[in-house]
Amino acid sequence: MKTAREPELRAAPHIEAIPPTIPFIGPEELMREGGHGSLLRLGANESNFGPSPSAVAAMAAELPRVCRYGDPESYDLREALAARAGCEIENICVGAGIDDLMGLAVRAFVGPGTLALATRGTYPTFAYHVTGYGGGLSTVDYRANGSIAVEALIERACALHPAIVYLANPDNPSGTFVSRPHVEALLEAMPSQSLLLLDEAYAEFAPQDVLPAGIDPRLVRMRTFSKAYGMAGARIGYAISTRRTIETFQKIRLQYGVNRNAQIGALAALQDDGYMQGVVAEVARGRDEYVRLADSLGHKSIASHTNFVCIDFGSAARAEGVVRTLMQRGVFIRKPGMPPLDGYIRVTVGTPPERVAFATHLRAVSAA
Amino acid sequence: MKTAREPELRAAPHIEAIPPTIPFIGPEELMREGGHGSLLRLGANESNFGPSPSAVAAMAAELPRVCRYGDPESYDLREALAARAGCEIENICVGAGIDDLMGLAVRAFVGPGTLALATRGTYPTFAYHVTGYGGGLSTVDYRANGSIAVEALIERACALHPAIVYLANPDNPSGTFVSRPHVEALLEAMPSQSLLLLDEAYAEFAPQDVLPAGIDPRLVRMRTFSKAYGMAGARIGYAISTRRTIETFQKIRLQYGVNRNAQIGALAALQDDGYMQGVVAEVARGRDEYVRLADSLGHKSIASHTNFVCIDFGSAARAEGVVRTLMQRGVFIRKPGMPPLDGYIRVTVGTPPERVAFATHLRAVSAA
Repeated sequence: MKTAREPELRAAPHIEAIPPTIPFIGPEELMREGGHGSLLRLGANESNFGPSPSAVAAMAAELPRVCRYGDPESYDLREALAARAGCEIENICVGAGIDDLMGLAVRAFVGPGTLALATRGTYPTFAYHVTGYGGGLSTVDYRANGSIAVEALIERACALHPAIVYLANPDNPSGTFVSRPHVEALLEAMPSQSLLLLDEAYAEFAPQDVLPAGIDPRLVRMRTFSKAYGMAGARIGYAISTRRTIETFQKIRLQYGVNRNAQIGALAALQDDGYMQGVVAEVARGRDEYVRLADSLGHKSIASHTNFVCIDFGSAARAEGVVRTLMQRGVFIRKPGMPPLDGYIRVTVGTPPERVAFATHLRAVSAA
Repeated sequence: MKTAREPELRAAPHIEAIPPTIPFIGPEELMREGGHGSLLRLGANESNFGPSPSAVAAMAAELPRVCRYGDPESYDLREALAARAGCEIENICVGAGIDDLMGLAVRAFVGPGTLALATRGTYPTFAYHVTGYGGGLSTVDYRANGSIAVEALIERACALHPAIVYLANPDNPSGTFVSRPHVEALLEAMPSQSLLLLDEAYAEFAPQDVLPAGIDPRLVRMRTFSKAYGMAGARIGYAISTRRTIETFQKIRLQYGVNRNAQIGALAALQDDGYMQGVVAEVARGRDEYVRLADSLGHKSIASHTNFVCIDFGSAARAEGVVRTLMQRGVFIRKPGMPPLDGYIRVTVGTPPERVAFATHLRAVSAA
């Protein structure tokens, strides 16, 4: 088809203003660029231990029925999640991962002329959504040791009255953790019209007794099956909040947006807690190995409550060089982009053989 | 947690204004409500023929690797789609079904103070997105016979200069089809700043020689693996447009939003065209059966180019009664909600045994 007039359609001004960059380059693109047939994938905090075998079996059995839409209510899964969280099904919204749910929160509460607040250099998809929905982002820095500067967040929130304060807890990319009393202090001190968006993607790896819990009118907690449950490719997560905030999400979410098999797999994974606990225990062993590896090479590392560890190489240039050299060897890791963590590399805890392979590569690269 | 102040957080005004209703009640909810252990599912235009066995095999083989995120670029799938469509990979955006892609288009081009245009009673998720993003919706009516009133769309578009003109083609729920010359006439006559959003969910069932084709600066075509390819539960579809419009979508889409297994299954399904063509042929036979069934009961039906048929019961009350009575018998169908089609029921073409069962139920209900 063609038409006599060929004008440029113009999107909303805040979207036109976004430069066409890619937030994260995926490992598949790195493989295409580098001509790698395979990679040691330790860069996306995927669980290389895989999903629960019972989740795989449940999904495999239902594949022939992928011709059916999934239950738009994700009823069975929400019922199971509500029973665990000690809340009602109306307090839970299931989405296609935390990225999706975070998008709903930003879309609902942030927009042109509205501010959000986060830590500079934390999980970048929050900033991506704020920009994509036309909001402004204010940031405070990590402390020098990579921990979240809760007091600075409070001070800035009280000054700016942001619509959303974002806290990844445990945090990505630092791996650090803010325990419940400090999260409660943040919530208490925040302006009354600010929402605390708590991204708990790595919560299963954190100390369970000091995790935030419960429902608060100004709190949205987001969880995922991508990390400890080993189902990143399935795209499924959930938000816990008040009935009113969940109802707001329900009004704008994609009603049929969650993969049917992801719902089935997530429910099976949830019912196989022993498998997930085994992954969490093995990840703890792997973190210790990475810390000892860093020590042995004379590098500091940050105590992590996640499935990855940040190792200090002293400068952004040096850390970038390590990431690049490892990629040339077929090892995919990432590094934090912003100070004070931009001199670190971030490596996911893989399986025992993957950790042995990584140690060999890192020793070789460090010696070079 | 609790806090001394418990204010109500308020979302954006256009979101607060949305009543908390559910666009479509899913069949699972109807089963829970009615206490049904199973349903004859002929209400959501799913392909009860299932996906290609080679797609099932490809997905089954990769399930243990669902711990990995899918390729955020959907590169392999886009490459295959571009080769078929005779365009570049940069002309294609893969999303989690047409609902997702339609949301991107509305988000980019429609907003508070902006108008969109559609046919009253067509696929309702377009209106859902327009409302959800704060836009206004103007509608024209179907013609009395259920066909799209292209001249009325042109006239209204020229009067109102909508940001988007939405056309489902073939249309849901009517099943009618607008051939290429008329789509081109619409595109040609539309105001220069209006985008034609062509929802081709059912295109595989339509006459291929008069389907719209190609790239136009003011055209977005959307396709899905939910219908003829039998993968509704996988949530995967794609948009074809100019590099510039696709780049706009890329700037705001969920980068890791498409299920990994859905990408793998879609590619395998695409490579098994024979299977899909067999489904299309069987669906054509089933449509004929439904038309004869309607005839035999003294009801008109609308000639359909999709995997469903609308059958006239003369009034909304009568059609609603048929839908309700069938549901009591464990048969799930739907009906159009708006005149002039609100006196029709809409039934999906099922497998041969399902069609026999449906005919028995409909005869019994019609005789009652």
